[in-house]
Amino acid sequence: MNPDRFSINQMTVRQLPLPDLVSHCVRLGIRGVGLWREPVREYGVEAAARLVREAGLEVTTLCRGGFFTSDDWLASNRAAVVEAAALGTDTLVLVSGGLTPAFPDLPAARARITEAIGELAPYAAEHGVRLAVEPLHPMYASDRCAVSTLDQALEIAERFPSSQVGVVVDTYHLWWDDRAPAAVERAAATGRIHSFQLADWTTPLPAGVLNGRGQLGTGAIDLRAWTALLDKTGYTGPVEVELFNDDLWARDGAEVLEETLRRFLEI
Amino acid sequence: MNPDRFSINQMTVRQLPLPDLVSHCVRLGIRGVGLWREPVREYGVEAAARLVREAGLEVTTLCRGGFFTSDDWLASNRAAVVEAAALGTDTLVLVSGGLTPAFPDLPAARARITEAIGELAPYAAEHGVRLAVEPLHPMYASDRCAVSTLDQALEIAERFPSSQVGVVVDTYHLWWDDRAPAAVERAAATGRIHSFQLADWTTPLPAGVLNGRGQLGTGAIDLRAWTALLDKTGYTGPVEVELFNDDLWARDGAEVLEETLRRFLEI
Repeated sequence: MNPDRFSINQMTVRQLPLPDLVSHCVRLGIRGVGLWREPVREYGVEAAARLVREAGLEVTTLCRGGFFTSDDWLASNRAAVVEAAALGTDTLVLVSGGLTPAFPDLPAARARITEAIGELAPYAAEHGVRLAVEPLHPMYASDRCAVSTLDQALEIAERFPSSQVGVVVDTYHLWWDDRAPAAVERAAATGRIHSFQLADWTTPLPAGVLNGRGQLGTGAIDLRAWTALLDKTGYTGPVEVELFNDDLWARDGAEVLEETLRRFLEI
Repeated sequence: MNPDRFSINQMTVRQLPLPDLVSHCVRLGIRGVGLWREPVREYGVEAAARLVREAGLEVTTLCRGGFFTSDDWLASNRAAVVEAAALGTDTLVLVSGGLTPAFPDLPAARARITEAIGELAPYAAEHGVRLAVEPLHPMYASDRCAVSTLDQALEIAERFPSSQVGVVVDTYHLWWDDRAPAAVERAAATGRIHSFQLADWTTPLPAGVLNGRGQLGTGAIDLRAWTALLDKTGYTGPVEVELFNDDLWARDGAEVLEETLRRFLEI
């Protein structure tokens, strides 16, 4: 892969404080970062924005808005939009939320998510931010995200202008789905791929199944086929590497960053 | 649910030796059991067959054949067919296998699975056994079963006569999939629902994600909607409860069996 398209998601090397992440990116010629709200708020949104801007880094995404099945979704998502705009990114990633007492089954949760996105999208657009609906692997359907396939994410996104609502294509979540390639083409054809993220699939999964995303090239996913698929559709945007992995987090962050870039280039 | 349709899968109460399982079934008026190859072979196939036959129990399924991406698939699956016939069940459940060095990606594994089933099905038919392709949850796609959706399972099954190859509808594996209801109707219309199994979806998932299937009514799945869906299609066969659950296995087996029957009746 072309190094200019590489973006490192902050969670991949969450052991690195933001200034260290930024300086290592500059040293390694990395041009993009995907940021997360919690560490950014801890550092200070304005300070973080200045830090990445002065380093010449592009903020490819802010993670994450969503959890639309919770009570306080509107205030927290509006805040996320404002933070995204302040950081200079045009893309807010949405993890849409799972089942709750108010939305106890999948059809109810999915309807709620669609409705909430419809309410949030114009507000985001006013701030120059587009929403990116991320389908999460079906193993998260009950507790994190009732949107499990790219087709479902597109069905939601396509109700709105593509400048306002698109999707995230993340190999970790979609690799198993034989319908995903056609959905990727459909998403690309309407300009709705707002983020493309890579992670590999390794087993056994850890308890809670959150922090076992594999380093590129160590798992079951044919990442070359995925990047070729995105290339074929004409997608030329950033390719973000987002790994949640306890083993990687236990190691030296700069070393993990270098390894991740190297493995990205090898794809 | 009608108690006459209840079948207890042996793994749900694997702490019970086979004679105890059989005697508790008789005591509780349970008429069906789903058996597993390993404990049956340990007890002796012929002895197990005699035990369940003399107790008047119906063996609703034998679990499991499959793992078609392994080297020794043919011998082991032929043995499974012979065991199924000896036990008097007409249904061998297939867990089709994941990625292996010889079949390193999903398209290769799925092609292999289709080919192997084509080779096994006539042999099974000669023994009065039909094959039931079980789509497993996508979280098992790499290491246990590259067949992840009911649509995929049907695409395989429909290449063969329905008397030879059908599918398993298991709520644990399919509940998240908004396309599953239409696939259930399609499967029923062509007589391909060879087994219907219930388990609930609970989180957090345990490490390895194998032994966290929820007791009926304790999780996220709308089991009433699923049983109503199957009823609507005209499916009148057994409804098997198959739970792999460390917490249930740590308890008294008879108590778990009674609880499972009670919760089944409450659906």
